[in-house]
Amino acid sequence: MTVIDQMWSSHPQVDEGDTSELVRRCLEACVECAQVCTVCADACLGEEMVADLVGCIRLNSDCADICAATSTVLARQTQPDLAVVRAVLEACRTACAACAAECGSHADMHDHCRVCAESCRRCEQACTELLAAL
Amino acid sequence: MTVIDQMWSSHPQVDEGDTSELVRRCLEACVECAQVCTVCADACLGEEMVADLVGCIRLNSDCADICAATSTVLARQTQPDLAVVRAVLEACRTACAACAAECGSHADMHDHCRVCAESCRRCEQACTELLAAL
Amino acid sequence: MTVIDQMWSSHPQVDEGDTSELVRRCLEACVECAQVCTVCADACLGEEMVADLVGCIRLNSDCADICAATSTVLARQTQPDLAVVRAVLEACRTACAACAAECGSHADMHDHCRVCAESCRRCEQACTELLAAL
Amino acid sequence: MTVIDQMWSSHPQVDEGDTSELVRRCLEACVECAQVCTVCADACLGEEMVADLVGCIRLNSDCADICAATSTVLARQTQPDLAVVRAVLEACRTACAACAAECGSHADMHDHCRVCAESCRRCEQACTELLAAL
Repeated sequence: MTVIDQMWSSHPQVDEGDTSELVRRCLEACVECAQVCTVCADACLGEEMVADLVGCIRLNSDCADICAATSTVLARQTQPDLAVVRAVLEACRTACAACAAECGSHADMHDHCRVCAESCRRCEQACTELLAAL
Repeated sequence: MTVIDQMWSSHPQVDEGDTSELVRRCLEACVECAQVCTVCADACLGEEMVADLVGCIRLNSDCADICAATSTVLARQTQPDLAVVRAVLEACRTACAACAAECGSHADMHDHCRVCAESCRRCEQACTELLAAL
Repeated sequence: MTVIDQMWSSHPQVDEGDTSELVRRCLEACVECAQVCTVCADACLGEEMVADLVGCIRLNSDCADICAATSTVLARQTQPDLAVVRAVLEACRTACAACAAECGSHADMHDHCRVCAESCRRCEQACTELLAAL
Repeated sequence: MTVIDQMWSSHPQVDEGDTSELVRRCLEACVECAQVCTVCADACLGEEMVADLVGCIRLNSDCADICAATSTVLARQTQPDLAVVRAVLEACRTACAACAAECGSHADMHDHCRVCAESCRRCEQACTELLAAL
């Protein structure tokens, strides 16, 4: 049982339906992806060939910020506005797909980009599954 | 000339086209709206009738987080991914519209909600205009 | 091996010293505490007695924001400025201590506050240990 | 009258003392500095000599994150914890001083670094004045 499970099990507005499990998984994916993108931007910045990685750093930064905002929206369970939740999930899915494509395109040169592309793909998938259920 | 104008006038990747003016206006609207929503959540929390304002505080918080993420994406001008920019603008427009409707519905009781609703409407409008131009 | 370990094992500027392990643990504690405080603010907002939890919601929100900023500073390993790292760790330690005290004071009434107080204490401890090692 | 003034004039917990003016000025300085540092990191990333600006981009990013967290703490006026407010102001002052020194050291080569150094100095000063008054 993760600490977020513990929090939600005592949350006055959380019921234990199927959506709740998808929300939890998507929240975890967003939190991980935000961190991983921040580290990937920083790792790219630390490479000798940083000038070739400018577009990657840019996308990492955007994706980190959007995943972080999505994670706080998902973390809140009191009186959610479904249109807002859906809109931020769509933005997150788009950012993750773009960042996964960019990082994936040079995944053989930089292992941090390979790991980041995989994290972005997991988050994109989690957003897509949650959107389908909402 | 604002300090952001000064920054962009020396930015190696910013050209002085029409879009740039719309971006600047939208960036300013997002930064203002993020702040105003943070203050409105806090002002609602400080009201005696806070229990009636829970939905408003929730939307203020989501809108603040989404506007803040949108503002950092817009502040970056180096190698933007247009699909990502569009997606976050759509999310921001949706959040601002929802928050404006909620705050607007009790604007006569709380002046901070009236001012917040107006700021959300300006930001929604700025996102819409920028989306139309991209 | 966590995904952050995977990222750092391919990071061009990370060496595998003792500090690195303390940084990783503190980063994890900050990421968890930011999330937990966001959920605790939201759970308090969802309680019928929300009017009695205003101070807790306020501290949860500050602690979440400060932990999130600390986590991004710690996630970066390229050319860190030690004075900045230390200063944000001090702020994080202070915010976690204050939030732990507040949540701890009504931990028997709300289990989410008990879990949150424990997460804040872990994060405070992780900051203290990292500060001692820097 | 700025929109934040309008918000605070209707805020149930804000009184119109001297501190309130210093808080408003510091809040504005933090919001501006967070934006300016985000743009400066991006402008540095867009320079041909990006490899020489890695340390600057790193400090810009840390300073932006810390200023943003400080701005949300200052924006809240309901039941503040003074130890937390002071601690985040100290962190912000330290980050702004470090970033001002770095940007200032190559201000003649990049005008965005000159403007950023000035914004950081204003924010450092505003934090120092508010700390003296709290």
